[in-house]
Amino acid sequence: MKFGGTSVDGLDRIRGAAARVKAEVDNGYDTIVVVSAMAGRTNELAAAAQSVTPLMDAREYDAVVANGENVTAGMMALAIQELGVPARSWQGWQVPVHTNSTHGAAKITAIGTDAINGKFAEGMKAAVVAGFQGVSAEQRVSTLGRGGSDTTAVAFAAAFGAERCDIFTDVDGVYTADPRLVRDARKLERISYEEMLELASLGAKVLQTRSVELAMRNKVRLCVRSSFTDAPGTILCDEEEIMEANTVSGVAHSRDEAKVTILSVADRPGVAAAVFGPLAEAGVNVDMIVQNISESGRTDITFSCPVEDVGRAGELLNGIKTSGEVNFRSLRLDTDVCKISVVGIGMRSQSGVAARMFEALAKYGINIQVIATSEIKISVLVARRFMELGVQALHDAFDPKGV
Amino acid sequence: MKFGGTSVDGLDRIRGAAARVKAEVDNGYDTIVVVSAMAGRTNELAAAAQSVTPLMDAREYDAVVANGENVTAGMMALAIQELGVPARSWQGWQVPVHTNSTHGAAKITAIGTDAINGKFAEGMKAAVVAGFQGVSAEQRVSTLGRGGSDTTAVAFAAAFGAERCDIFTDVDGVYTADPRLVRDARKLERISYEEMLELASLGAKVLQTRSVELAMRNKVRLCVRSSFTDAPGTILCDEEEIMEANTVSGVAHSRDEAKVTILSVADRPGVAAAVFGPLAEAGVNVDMIVQNISESGRTDITFSCPVEDVGRAGELLNGIKTSGEVNFRSLRLDTDVCKISVVGIGMRSQSGVAARMFEALAKYGINIQVIATSEIKISVLVARRFMELGVQALHDAFDPKGV
Repeated sequence: MKFGGTSVDGLDRIRGAAARVKAEVDNGYDTIVVVSAMAGRTNELAAAAQSVTPLMDAREYDAVVANGENVTAGMMALAIQELGVPARSWQGWQVPVHTNSTHGAAKITAIGTDAINGKFAEGMKAAVVAGFQGVSAEQRVSTLGRGGSDTTAVAFAAAFGAERCDIFTDVDGVYTADPRLVRDARKLERISYEEMLELASLGAKVLQTRSVELAMRNKVRLCVRSSFTDAPGTILCDEEEIMEANTVSGVAHSRDEAKVTILSVADRPGVAAAVFGPLAEAGVNVDMIVQNISESGRTDITFSCPVEDVGRAGELLNGIKTSGEVNFRSLRLDTDVCKISVVGIGMRSQSGVAARMFEALAKYGINIQVIATSEIKISVLVARRFMELGVQALHDAFDPKGV
Repeated sequence: MKFGGTSVDGLDRIRGAAARVKAEVDNGYDTIVVVSAMAGRTNELAAAAQSVTPLMDAREYDAVVANGENVTAGMMALAIQELGVPARSWQGWQVPVHTNSTHGAAKITAIGTDAINGKFAEGMKAAVVAGFQGVSAEQRVSTLGRGGSDTTAVAFAAAFGAERCDIFTDVDGVYTADPRLVRDARKLERISYEEMLELASLGAKVLQTRSVELAMRNKVRLCVRSSFTDAPGTILCDEEEIMEANTVSGVAHSRDEAKVTILSVADRPGVAAAVFGPLAEAGVNVDMIVQNISESGRTDITFSCPVEDVGRAGELLNGIKTSGEVNFRSLRLDTDVCKISVVGIGMRSQSGVAARMFEALAKYGINIQVIATSEIKISVLVARRFMELGVQALHDAFDPKGV
């Protein structure tokens, strides 16, 4: 059971979460409870560390920011004990949660199960684990990066062979579209890992991509559900477990996109590498890439990236504008775009999905600027003012079924 | 170098402390820097833990309250690094600081020096240690109780054979009396461990008693000084190092006293045990005890204890009032008292100190209610309204010299 920041924000919510743990214990389960820091606390600690020095020793940054989870873990253990359930807290180094030494974005390499299993054997019923953290081979506190507590939860579920991994959060499941944009968005009863991966990376901020990947690799049965209601939530499972797949399971959108067009660049081998190599090194997260048909030996390259990276991308590209390798004419940066995507494993066995999508957008005069496709996803960039209209139009067109 | 809560309260103060560390490193020293949590943070964490349940698992309490020091340690390490000095933070379990399992008031049993000395050998110049915490044999986070960071600092100084242990705090040394009460109170250049022990337990809240005991036992050269000025502070040392001892080094006072009088109790062996045994078990911190001369087989017993314990003491005593062992007539509780004490190793070689003390108080009509003496201390309980007057009168009478 994993409780996110809003689910442990204050004593009442911690008690509410503890009651859920007790219910599972009463059902006969030994439980592992992964907790985040209270909402906002990690940001405060990160700001405190950053205030000292921007060029920071990431090991010290981690030593500072990991403390929010320790506090919640202790409080949660007390709240569970208060309900008469034997519980104790575990910090990353106590478990231990072994990670590599990439501080601030560490990867879990192994989870020691002996200590916690030993306590289960002695009668402990709830092991409350501070999420988001681990310990490096050098015995330093490490953190997994933002959203790391989801990853902690999935990794524990895998290591301990958990029957289920429930992610309690402030939404009650995965929807066919953002309910704030689409009135008739429906909650999905089930979704495949693959679809969830596409949705997670497309801006449906329910679960971190990493945790979904980890769940898929280890076949962890994930359930996303609300801390605040008893609604059943959405189960993530293998494709095979989904009997009748929708053509499209969901319509996702993302505002945080920018479009970069490199005009009139030489169309010969090595140019793409000369452009995208330096961007990758500079940490610009390039998403969609389109290259137009070449005329007279020159071509245009368009790509999308997160809005916060576009300034850096522009500077970098202007810096290599006249280098022999690249040598383009001009650069166009556009932050007035958004990305809309349809996702569904049903696409694998259906043709004509792209055509239906383009038709649905054309009906409202929405011009498509860039298109990118994968096996189970079609994404388009459109002008930002069309976002809400586009999402609704696609939801209407594909009418994905929920629960 | 130990920096207390007010000395690390906010970025500017942390930077100020870091500059002091750099100065010592520039003087050629390897430094161990023990830090407290920022002022108030430990109270906040304790309140958070207590809010969950008053009947608390002390191991979880410790897991919660120890985090404030972790945050400061990381920030301090960063601030020292920022000045170009190789530094890193150490949490209790990383050092390790071994403690017993008396959570909330743990005792340090051993400090591992290999890891930190290893890093010094590799060029680290400042080991920033989270004070107040350690790790139990069961690998749980433990805390040393309030003021534990002083104890941490002294224990490290002893374990590493430090040349000096500087306690940076919000006062600039130990004074001959509280400067807020006595205008001409003077800062002491030196004070013996024994005197400081008496002063610490008498309410001069400069250093925790435990840390002074530890320093005395291990001959750690302690220096109490201000984080905010460059004044030289007060050095704690062996009696032998103090050339010409004052008769009285300081006049201490404490408001937090209450007086309990048990009237007409049987005066026979076992009665004192029957009274003070249960009080000790109930955690009532009995200080001065006086038994009047017995008449007709019955006597009065008076004792003092902290104000916050007096309600408990009264309840407990009334509960055993008519028990065969004790069987007293009535109980008188008085919280309108204060304790004033004169302390000085010079008393050992001087007679007539008590007489001079009583005379000085009598001059202002201050009635003495209870007297207790040790080799280097005389304490009296007087009505609370006489506190300021009494301290000033005694300071005038003995005129202790400062720096």
